[in-house]
Amino acid sequence: MSGKKTVGIGLVGAGFMGRCHANAFRSVGGLFDLPVAPALEILADATEQSARRAAAELGFNRGTGDWRLLVADPAVDIVAVTAPNALHEPIVLEALAHGKAVYCEKPLSTTAASALRMTEAAEAAGALTVVGFNFLRNPMIRLAREIIDAGEIGEVASFRGRHAENYMADPNVPHSFRTDPAGGGALADIGSHVISMARHLLGPIDGVSAESRTIHSSRPVSPGSDKRAPVEVDDVTHALVRFGNGATGTLEANWAATGRTMDLSFEIAGTRGAIAFSQERMNELLVWTPGRDGRTGFTRIESGPAHPPYGRFCPAPGHHLGFNDLKVIEVAELLAAFAQGSKGYPDFREAYEVQRIVDAMQRSAKNGLWTGL
Amino acid sequence: MSGKKTVGIGLVGAGFMGRCHANAFRSVGGLFDLPVAPALEILADATEQSARRAAAELGFNRGTGDWRLLVADPAVDIVAVTAPNALHEPIVLEALAHGKAVYCEKPLSTTAASALRMTEAAEAAGALTVVGFNFLRNPMIRLAREIIDAGEIGEVASFRGRHAENYMADPNVPHSFRTDPAGGGALADIGSHVISMARHLLGPIDGVSAESRTIHSSRPVSPGSDKRAPVEVDDVTHALVRFGNGATGTLEANWAATGRTMDLSFEIAGTRGAIAFSQERMNELLVWTPGRDGRTGFTRIESGPAHPPYGRFCPAPGHHLGFNDLKVIEVAELLAAFAQGSKGYPDFREAYEVQRIVDAMQRSAKNGLWTGL
Amino acid sequence: MSGKKTVGIGLVGAGFMGRCHANAFRSVGGLFDLPVAPALEILADATEQSARRAAAELGFNRGTGDWRLLVADPAVDIVAVTAPNALHEPIVLEALAHGKAVYCEKPLSTTAASALRMTEAAEAAGALTVVGFNFLRNPMIRLAREIIDAGEIGEVASFRGRHAENYMADPNVPHSFRTDPAGGGALADIGSHVISMARHLLGPIDGVSAESRTIHSSRPVSPGSDKRAPVEVDDVTHALVRFGNGATGTLEANWAATGRTMDLSFEIAGTRGAIAFSQERMNELLVWTPGRDGRTGFTRIESGPAHPPYGRFCPAPGHHLGFNDLKVIEVAELLAAFAQGSKGYPDFREAYEVQRIVDAMQRSAKNGLWTGL
Amino acid sequence: MSGKKTVGIGLVGAGFMGRCHANAFRSVGGLFDLPVAPALEILADATEQSARRAAAELGFNRGTGDWRLLVADPAVDIVAVTAPNALHEPIVLEALAHGKAVYCEKPLSTTAASALRMTEAAEAAGALTVVGFNFLRNPMIRLAREIIDAGEIGEVASFRGRHAENYMADPNVPHSFRTDPAGGGALADIGSHVISMARHLLGPIDGVSAESRTIHSSRPVSPGSDKRAPVEVDDVTHALVRFGNGATGTLEANWAATGRTMDLSFEIAGTRGAIAFSQERMNELLVWTPGRDGRTGFTRIESGPAHPPYGRFCPAPGHHLGFNDLKVIEVAELLAAFAQGSKGYPDFREAYEVQRIVDAMQRSAKNGLWTGL
Ligand SMILES: NC(=O)C1=CN([C@@H]2O[C@H](COP(=O)(O)OP(=O)(O)OC[C@H]3O[C@@H](n4cnc5c(N)ncnc54)[C@H](O)[C@@H]3O)[C@@H](O)[C@H]2O)C=CC1
Ligand SMILES: NC(=O)C1=CN([C@@H]2O[C@H](COP(=O)(O)OP(=O)(O)OC[C@H]3O[C@@H](n4cnc5c(N)ncnc54)[C@H](O)[C@@H]3O)[C@@H](O)[C@H]2O)C=CC1
Ligand SMILES: NC(=O)C1=CN([C@@H]2O[C@H](COP(=O)(O)OP(=O)(O)OC[C@H]3O[C@@H](n4cnc5c(N)ncnc54)[C@H](O)[C@@H]3O)[C@@H](O)[C@H]2O)C=CC1
Ligand SMILES: NC(=O)C1=CN([C@@H]2O[C@H](COP(=O)(O)OP(=O)(O)OC[C@H]3O[C@@H](n4cnc5c(N)ncnc54)[C@H](O)[C@@H]3O)[C@@H](O)[C@H]2O)C=CC1
Repeated sequence: MSGKKTVGIGLVGAGFMGRCHANAFRSVGGLFDLPVAPALEILADATEQSARRAAAELGFNRGTGDWRLLVADPAVDIVAVTAPNALHEPIVLEALAHGKAVYCEKPLSTTAASALRMTEAAEAAGALTVVGFNFLRNPMIRLAREIIDAGEIGEVASFRGRHAENYMADPNVPHSFRTDPAGGGALADIGSHVISMARHLLGPIDGVSAESRTIHSSRPVSPGSDKRAPVEVDDVTHALVRFGNGATGTLEANWAATGRTMDLSFEIAGTRGAIAFSQERMNELLVWTPGRDGRTGFTRIESGPAHPPYGRFCPAPGHHLGFNDLKVIEVAELLAAFAQGSKGYPDFREAYEVQRIVDAMQRSAKNGLWTGL
Repeated sequence: MSGKKTVGIGLVGAGFMGRCHANAFRSVGGLFDLPVAPALEILADATEQSARRAAAELGFNRGTGDWRLLVADPAVDIVAVTAPNALHEPIVLEALAHGKAVYCEKPLSTTAASALRMTEAAEAAGALTVVGFNFLRNPMIRLAREIIDAGEIGEVASFRGRHAENYMADPNVPHSFRTDPAGGGALADIGSHVISMARHLLGPIDGVSAESRTIHSSRPVSPGSDKRAPVEVDDVTHALVRFGNGATGTLEANWAATGRTMDLSFEIAGTRGAIAFSQERMNELLVWTPGRDGRTGFTRIESGPAHPPYGRFCPAPGHHLGFNDLKVIEVAELLAAFAQGSKGYPDFREAYEVQRIVDAMQRSAKNGLWTGL
Repeated sequence: MSGKKTVGIGLVGAGFMGRCHANAFRSVGGLFDLPVAPALEILADATEQSARRAAAELGFNRGTGDWRLLVADPAVDIVAVTAPNALHEPIVLEALAHGKAVYCEKPLSTTAASALRMTEAAEAAGALTVVGFNFLRNPMIRLAREIIDAGEIGEVASFRGRHAENYMADPNVPHSFRTDPAGGGALADIGSHVISMARHLLGPIDGVSAESRTIHSSRPVSPGSDKRAPVEVDDVTHALVRFGNGATGTLEANWAATGRTMDLSFEIAGTRGAIAFSQERMNELLVWTPGRDGRTGFTRIESGPAHPPYGRFCPAPGHHLGFNDLKVIEVAELLAAFAQGSKGYPDFREAYEVQRIVDAMQRSAKNGLWTGL
Repeated sequence: MSGKKTVGIGLVGAGFMGRCHANAFRSVGGLFDLPVAPALEILADATEQSARRAAAELGFNRGTGDWRLLVADPAVDIVAVTAPNALHEPIVLEALAHGKAVYCEKPLSTTAASALRMTEAAEAAGALTVVGFNFLRNPMIRLAREIIDAGEIGEVASFRGRHAENYMADPNVPHSFRTDPAGGGALADIGSHVISMARHLLGPIDGVSAESRTIHSSRPVSPGSDKRAPVEVDDVTHALVRFGNGATGTLEANWAATGRTMDLSFEIAGTRGAIAFSQERMNELLVWTPGRDGRTGFTRIESGPAHPPYGRFCPAPGHHLGFNDLKVIEVAELLAAFAQGSKGYPDFREAYEVQRIVDAMQRSAKNGLWTGL
């Protein structure tokens, strides 16, 4: 219909994130003015059957139970990886070997060592890579970054961030790849989001001191099972952090935070102003800057067309964005980078840096020492 | 790809709402499990050129500058109308004459008399009709309705609602179809939203007493023009309302509400509980119900999979919906009704009832009297 | 101890407000730098016994069961009236006859006619009068007034106010002076607060159209009684209002507002800015004024020393004021006016104007017509 | 007037807190039903002149420039200490030597060693002691404690607290006792508040790991001076904490928190529920407990008569308390303990425990190690 160059998409995984990726690839063309159009070529899932069903539902031309076929398929230009974390490395390495661009869900892998292998392979291949830290795509986060970069809040002095949800608060939530000792735990799963946010806004982290805790010592081995197995990963991690620019602060990853469903939040105090945000109210940014005595306070800025790329979704303010829209923005930037041959962001190198911090926190939580990076 | 029966979509208008409809039709298939799949057949816009460009951008097979061709086209099953209000009646009547189902933006028309003609034509044709009161589709509004219907807040005693935005607050915003004396004004434009909400939640309105005011007496005749013309419609209308169930309250429509971008909000007091909502925080519903002394308060419920059809967008709570998602829900319900041959909601009859209230308020604002319905 | 001239205080009534007045008179001297010091001379209550007990508890020298003795006592300079509304007129008239200054709780009386008699008597006597509309004393309200008066939000276009509480929401709350057909009802009781607020901030009201409703048709005749008697006053009143300056809006008085304990709130839209406030968060004022595109929003100003007379209570911001502090401010202004021989505010004339509006709304609610003032 | 036994009060210091204490002693008798009545005997300040003036203003019988006279005076039963921190120990030890009860502002002293000396002296003397951690007196905090103690949120798993203000955010705020290397710094000054809160709600803290930072390296030596001297204390301290009950968390003390005036706040996650609070909205407690699917959320409980001793201030809900009211509650509990001969809370022992934690954090911040307690 559009006569645009098409880009073949191969999607691995059809769960929570797989569906979200599929939706983004379907929507993006009608919202963003892109030089290329995604073509939903192949979907790979755990089994042939589930892959076929999902492909039909989500609008892919073909389904396969074998991701190896997908990453090797000539119709596929970009491989989107939404399989469990432990599969990221094998899938990605093989996709890179076939010369594909790779769009991988966070965390990049289960260990920093693995993430580094993936990063080096991608850099050697000169491949476009993007990692799914979708919360960075929020126009309100873009605004926060602009305010900081412009020096409007002075020098950043303190960062207090967390990612707190309650999806593992119930001790009867069963084991899954999320509790796998290899790469699981609250810190790896959602701590990676708030670490990426901290880096995105403040830059490098130099040192960490962390404290981890397993609140529920056992969980059912699988959904509905009476058998329980011990939990070896953290439910909650609190960490002190030192940034390269001198700022200090704390980060928390907590998947047993009763009452919270998406408190990816932070407060940044600069020497002349402050910024506060929570993903629970993702269309609002609270900003404090100096002003007339008795007239200052946090200003609640609501997202609108003045905050790109909000205008792509709606020409009027007040019509808020939702979570899925963040993924659409991510995919738009991925496709633009693909079309232009430019670098992706956050790329594997950036995701590896996040992973190094996760690893450093895990080591610190074990040995009780500050850990440099 | 899916083998589903397709439903041909003809979209009239490619502005703010036209793009929103197009996006919804593109997305809905991957999110909802529908028996039919929409096929984006024709897009009609003001000119041939703009229609062709928009068709390409939004993924329609064809574009036309003449909506008469669209409504007559055999490939079109559903005509979606997002043209300016004054065009709704001619387009809809002709679409009905061709046996089409009609999905029309709100307000249904510029006067109650016109809306009644459209309603009667649709009923005579036995056509499926749906009107774009998208805010009713919010899972949080569905929850509010369930709470009221189950009697959880007792008998509803009072409703205090408004739709307040600031898009006309600046006296230099020019004239447009929104300020057309035939069917324009804040009350018709956004008052219709809060009236439909009030009816959706509390049922029929029996009487109104209204007060309208034009804050800015003139506006530029067109964008960028130095010439100004008088404004003949209301910038703000406040009204007293009496509901059929005995409840009383107020409604406000205000498009000059400085500081507000989407305060479609209400507070409902029942004899045993209360509900409060604002579209500014569309993923939250505040509910008060009796409890242990000293432990009660408004509970801030966040939307999640427990609130259908949220789960269609995301299997986990905390990942909020955005405005465009409401349109996707609307389109899903439209297509389901089309596939099942069932009635749409809100249909023309319902939209006509809304329009009668708009009209009654306009009359009351002129003569200063309570007006029955 | 201080050598300051003392002012003899006679307090009539030792209930909710009586105790609040007593506390204010005790505290004020240590907080405000006043030229006079209040001396707590006599307290009158319904019976000799309760008056004596209350006098001892609240620090008055003497107690009496006969307010006639109090208003005639030469040691008394200021008569503070916190008895039920129906007693305001007789007490006040006699106090004025004895040349006293009068500090009377709101509403001034049970009817506008009565309030006018009191006002004329006070003006004839040249007496200092102050009426207890304590919510006007809030430093945040003073700020709101300054912002409006300075034209910072442009011309005021719309006022949306209410005073909503839940203290009569339960149909088993018994009758009291508050439900007395002579001067009772939600509108008289708390509507008077929001009317005084509206006048304080926007000036005269020219016309009203009101709708009243009795939600609970009967109540126990007295606490604990099984016998019920019909309710003849309003539980909730909604009104349209037109201000002298051209602004329009709504006012609500609701004592059956489930979930609300003190929603004396308003939103004011001016042509260039907006102000929002709720007594539920009495230390915050939300202000919107124009600014850089994409950077505006409501600013949450917290009360502090920059907002007089906050500094009298605390030299540092963040240490919020409470309700009783508002009464201390009221008493400080009363005593300062007494010492300087200046006029009080809001005086009887102002309270009479409020009462006229209450009366006009009551008439409008009966006859369904707009009522001029 | 009341015939009650009087208790002689000697107040040292007439600054911010001195005035607040004086107000509380003046007000308390009319609000609380106490067996004793405070008599404001002597006020000591830095100079004879300032003491005399303050005594007159605040209602004390006498003023003195020598606190030694005050603590020795037979008319004084309770010595209230609101002098700068470094003076706490000498004043308190001498007051104890004279057999007085002591009511001392926080922090108890400048070092843990000093606080221990004071504690042991008080215990040896069998003296009543109370320390001014007034934030614990909030009815909402009492409610939080009850909810925790009753197990309503299950086992407490995580505590995230801070005390953040902005009073030192400006590098031109001069040196004062608050920046004295002996006992100064954000951690000692306001960190003590959030530490006392954490202990009050969760019990003992076993270990800490802290990170301190001086944001502004120099400040004027005195108000208005051009001369600057280096700052040797922390502007912000972040700490990891381990509680005796197994919970983990973070604490922050920050007096350079731009935008914040009183964010003494915490969020507590238990295994079955959660509590959140900020002193910025001191009349609200947010509580999450399990409930019907899709109906849970944080409930905003507003303070009212159901939350003792709120009812002492007002018989109706919605009439919020202010900061000064917390001090009145503190003084009421002090006087009640004095009259009954019972122990005070928080007493010196408790304040010493707080101080030990401050000290441990300071050591940890220096050596970078976890520090046990
Ligand atoms: N960016 C974000 O906000 C989020 C990112 N994620 C990330 O997305 C990834 C997937 O998580 P979810 O979608 O929540 O998990 P999920 O369990 O819902 O989905 C995983 C999918 O992978 C498929 N799969 C398993 N083995 C496979 C194989 N051998 N070949 C092909 N497919 C296979 C499963 O059948 C399933 O469809 C994880 O890396 C996770 O960390 C998850 C949720 C949110
Ligand atoms: N449901 C909602 O929340 C909203 C509903 N609306 C409604 O949607 C309708 C359109 O409003 P907007 O999209 O905001 O206006 P718009 O001005 O952005 O778009 C109107 C479109 O109609 C086209 N048009 C004009 N004359 C035409 C003709 N003769 N044939 C075909 N197309 C023609 C224009 O070229 C333009 O593309 C109105 O009825 C409005 O009330 C608008 C905004 C929000
Ligand atoms: N400014 C404000 O925010 C408020 C004002 N009010 C006003 O204060 C007044 C009193 O209300 P509440 O204190 O709530 O009532 P209340 O019922 O608590 O107290 C009334 C007091 O008047 C006494 N009284 C009755 N008859 C008397 C008599 N013949 N002589 C002397 N005392 C007599 C009663 O014994 C009782 O102590 C009313 O006018 C009410 O509208 C009440 C609450 C809040
Ligand atoms: N509980 C709370 O929320 C707060 C507690 N504080 C504590 O209260 C204490 C005092 O702090 P502020 O009132 O803010 O200080 P401030 O500087 O306002 O007042 C200190 C007072 O002590 C007096 N003073 C100094 N030397 C003296 C001497 N030799 N003899 C007698 N008086 C002397 C000064 O003249 C001044 O009146 C500190 O320990 C501080 O930590 C302060 C603020 C809030």
